[in-house]
Amino acid sequence: MTRWNLPLDHLPSAWYNVLPRLDTPLGPPLHPGTREPVGPDDLALLFPMALIAQEMSPEPWVDIPGEVLDILRLWRPTPLVRATRLEAALGTSARVYYKDESVSPAGSHKPNTAVPQAFYNRQEGVSRLATETGAGQWGTALAFACAQFDLECMVYMVRTSFEAKPYRKTMMEVWGGHVVPSPVEDPTHPGSLGEAITDAVRDAAGRPDTHYALGSVLNHVLLHQTVIGLEARDQFGLAGERLPDVVIAPCGGGSNLGGLALPYYEDTDVRLVAVEPSSCPTLTEGTFEYDFGDTGGMTPLLPMYTLGHDFIPPPIHAGGLRYHGDSPIISQLVRDGRMEAVAYPQGKVFDAAVLFARTEGKVPAPEAAHGIRAAVDEALAAKETGEERVILFNFCGHGHLDLAAYDDYLNGRLLD
Amino acid sequence: MTRWNLPLDHLPSAWYNVLPRLDTPLGPPLHPGTREPVGPDDLALLFPMALIAQEMSPEPWVDIPGEVLDILRLWRPTPLVRATRLEAALGTSARVYYKDESVSPAGSHKPNTAVPQAFYNRQEGVSRLATETGAGQWGTALAFACAQFDLECMVYMVRTSFEAKPYRKTMMEVWGGHVVPSPVEDPTHPGSLGEAITDAVRDAAGRPDTHYALGSVLNHVLLHQTVIGLEARDQFGLAGERLPDVVIAPCGGGSNLGGLALPYYEDTDVRLVAVEPSSCPTLTEGTFEYDFGDTGGMTPLLPMYTLGHDFIPPPIHAGGLRYHGDSPIISQLVRDGRMEAVAYPQGKVFDAAVLFARTEGKVPAPEAAHGIRAAVDEALAAKETGEERVILFNFCGHGHLDLAAYDDYLNGRLLD
Repeated sequence: MTRWNLPLDHLPSAWYNVLPRLDTPLGPPLHPGTREPVGPDDLALLFPMALIAQEMSPEPWVDIPGEVLDILRLWRPTPLVRATRLEAALGTSARVYYKDESVSPAGSHKPNTAVPQAFYNRQEGVSRLATETGAGQWGTALAFACAQFDLECMVYMVRTSFEAKPYRKTMMEVWGGHVVPSPVEDPTHPGSLGEAITDAVRDAAGRPDTHYALGSVLNHVLLHQTVIGLEARDQFGLAGERLPDVVIAPCGGGSNLGGLALPYYEDTDVRLVAVEPSSCPTLTEGTFEYDFGDTGGMTPLLPMYTLGHDFIPPPIHAGGLRYHGDSPIISQLVRDGRMEAVAYPQGKVFDAAVLFARTEGKVPAPEAAHGIRAAVDEALAAKETGEERVILFNFCGHGHLDLAAYDDYLNGRLLD
Repeated sequence: MTRWNLPLDHLPSAWYNVLPRLDTPLGPPLHPGTREPVGPDDLALLFPMALIAQEMSPEPWVDIPGEVLDILRLWRPTPLVRATRLEAALGTSARVYYKDESVSPAGSHKPNTAVPQAFYNRQEGVSRLATETGAGQWGTALAFACAQFDLECMVYMVRTSFEAKPYRKTMMEVWGGHVVPSPVEDPTHPGSLGEAITDAVRDAAGRPDTHYALGSVLNHVLLHQTVIGLEARDQFGLAGERLPDVVIAPCGGGSNLGGLALPYYEDTDVRLVAVEPSSCPTLTEGTFEYDFGDTGGMTPLLPMYTLGHDFIPPPIHAGGLRYHGDSPIISQLVRDGRMEAVAYPQGKVFDAAVLFARTEGKVPAPEAAHGIRAAVDEALAAKETGEERVILFNFCGHGHLDLAAYDDYLNGRLLD
């Protein structure tokens, strides 16, 4: 067999919380004005108390509410697949597995956190959520989740993406979302994720019916994504496979990486690898310091690797990885040497994406292809030494709405 | 539970052949020149002998080759899902199930036959396949299948689709396919499926290394698609559900409909329903007679419902349903009263598509949405009478590459 489905009654019923298990506790978020540690009340303008509690939770496990499970089971558990046809094409002695998060309605891992965020907000009486989106995966997921709980959804979309990807906008609208280009106040500006966060936070702070939702970076987001790694652990058991030697995922803000890798945190023999674009090398070339999450300096300061909150990444196709900062949890793991980080130019990433599509069938999102590139290189390294390396990576999204990028690649128009 | 996965070792290992079971045997295909019944040799220019044998097979079951199963298991068995959230939105007493064929690499049911067609051609030493595609689903599937067996793939794409859907072309190219607009000889002509078949047949007939591949209509295509209905039967057992009262699928050439419905042919209490667009009402308003499969009159004549081989359907969004004729098997079932046919204008189809997306999450292809529309109306009819009707429909493809159609719908630009 090359694919393993968990029994459908084996959905994880609690999220894995890495916070109380970390060797080095995270520094607290700091208030953007006073630079003092923020408390729950400072965040209540933007988030429901349930999420604020999760952001700082000392509990090793956090129960997943039944109403959230009822939505997640529309597509979870997701398949674990052994990429035997990719292995054969590489002639490797490694065994390569991937977790297929592309099967969700929105086509990526993002609904894993969009659904609980919509649920907790609805539970506390909020009727509207504001957010930002870069490539569009997060906005799509939140629009889907809001439709499930009858919430309005307002999405500020990075202007270059808004113009280049009209179908992402349409997909959000199919689920009832509202989408506008960001920055709102300067129609000539191409936009960035940092700018769009500023727009969304300003919207939420200004309306009592509205909260803000973030698709990555924060602790509660990574917490919700741990369903990915928890399922993978069980599926490795079904496959009769030992622990992976290396767990790999692309890293923009860190949520799909955290989701797959954190449940392996305590298995210290398992290497954890973050993959980022060379053009936005936050973990590989940034500095570890307190910085704002947005360009406008409206968010709390977080302790993280950053390229500076005014860094505008070049317009690569993996829009979901164009972020100046990174998750504090991921940053701490890299700083402590528990996690490695590598960076690739997009040409090498698309080489791997097309190889994957032609062998395993599925067309990857450019973000997901970063993980494939690193997995291929791990498999080729194992081939050199004849080692039976076990590799697990996160196939975090399909590329059905990113085909313009493939057209550029196939016609020699891709810039590195 | 609302979803059932078959165990992964429960892939059907033989196809269900309806031919020897039909109450009324099919009339033979006739030679386009002599109008005499064609024999296997007449078809050998276009198809491998294995497929020609299947086209006329008297065997009730046909074994699926292991090398085909090895590819199908990349995504099969596909999920059976109970649409409980759609049921709740409708307030119906019916139980509504769908078979999710959108999870294949190409995003539709089409690879179920593309893979065996590529396999049998490769086995007989053919190195190149030529085909046509309308909306793009079939060309995408054949490009994927050819990549698995190292075959060249040449796709003649209906010109209006070629121009309106550049990303479909890119997806075929990702898998190594070559795509040109059809009709080749008249760049001002918008094209039609019938014209594109003429182009592809002419290509295949003119090159000894090349065969032709058809994505619907023919008996062997429907045979390959029966994995859908065979799995559904087993999954109904897992769900503890009785036989469906009604089995529904969209019908263009008839392949996804045949795939789901034929394995229920002998359960005479199960109603079988074909859904077509009002603008191309082959089964509901066509005549049953011998007609060509293509516009140019190069294919054998088949006994089927037809609007005439020179009928050019209006440019609705469900390009996969814009075909003047229909599968002889499906046509015979309708003629014999074993199958019903209904037709809908596209506005009502998109109403149902958006309702489905907002409740069940997945965004349907316009073709798939025809089946959803009929399933919704069956569920509403059951609500009227308070009946516990069990409804099964085929979710034959996702709409990720059809979002322009949704944009038209959401902005009032859809024509009925």
